[in-house]
Amino acid sequence: MKNFSKTSLVAERRVELHDKLSLTGAEISINTLEAGTKVPFVHYHKKNEEIYGITAGKGKVIIDGETVELTAGDWLRIAPSAKRQFFAAKDSALSYICIQVKENSLEGYTKDDGVMA
Amino acid sequence: MKNFSKTSLVAERRVELHDKLSLTGAEISINTLEAGTKVPFVHYHKKNEEIYGITAGKGKVIIDGETVELTAGDWLRIAPSAKRQFFAAKDSALSYICIQVKENSLEGYTKDDGVMA
Repeated sequence: MKNFSKTSLVAERRVELHDKLSLTGAEISINTLEAGTKVPFVHYHKKNEEIYGITAGKGKVIIDGETVELTAGDWLRIAPSAKRQFFAAKDSALSYICIQVKENSLEGYTKDDGVMA
Repeated sequence: MKNFSKTSLVAERRVELHDKLSLTGAEISINTLEAGTKVPFVHYHKKNEEIYGITAGKGKVIIDGETVELTAGDWLRIAPSAKRQFFAAKDSALSYICIQVKENSLEGYTKDDGVMA
């Protein structure tokens, strides 16, 4: 496999990067919910932690029955078993990055895994 | 551990999310290089794949001697052993998200790991 891969996003409602970039440690999706819309189902995960970063707009997520308001700059970790559903606001789209990783898979990082060349 | 955690970013040159969100499968940093500046070292990783998403501005990365031009909307996977250094353009800052995950740690994802509640 090449030592790097690159893709340039185009405007779509959902772009998935795992296959585009040959990712091996994460799936990453770039998403936009139009104003007044929602992800049409509640879901949870078997093994994967999800990390969401709100890049634009506003909305909310309901996590195990608890409502969390969302706006650009917010980042959340959601445990695998938590039941979640995302909603754009009535008057605003909600754009977000979703990162799926296997819970407890990270060992060292930054200073413990990085090496000055 | 609570079933979710949330943080709201403030404008800083680098924000690291691992400890703020109690992440267990990734480290995520939100970074801005000012115009004309660079990460002051070349580095590689022992075990971690890095995924970079350019959120604003422009610049370049040199990966194992190869120059890759960068602009908002670009996403890259960089293999652990690849030697990398990021640069903002002379006339533009470069803002990016960096996601560290253990290479080959992801098992199922999306339909294979998610469950409708």
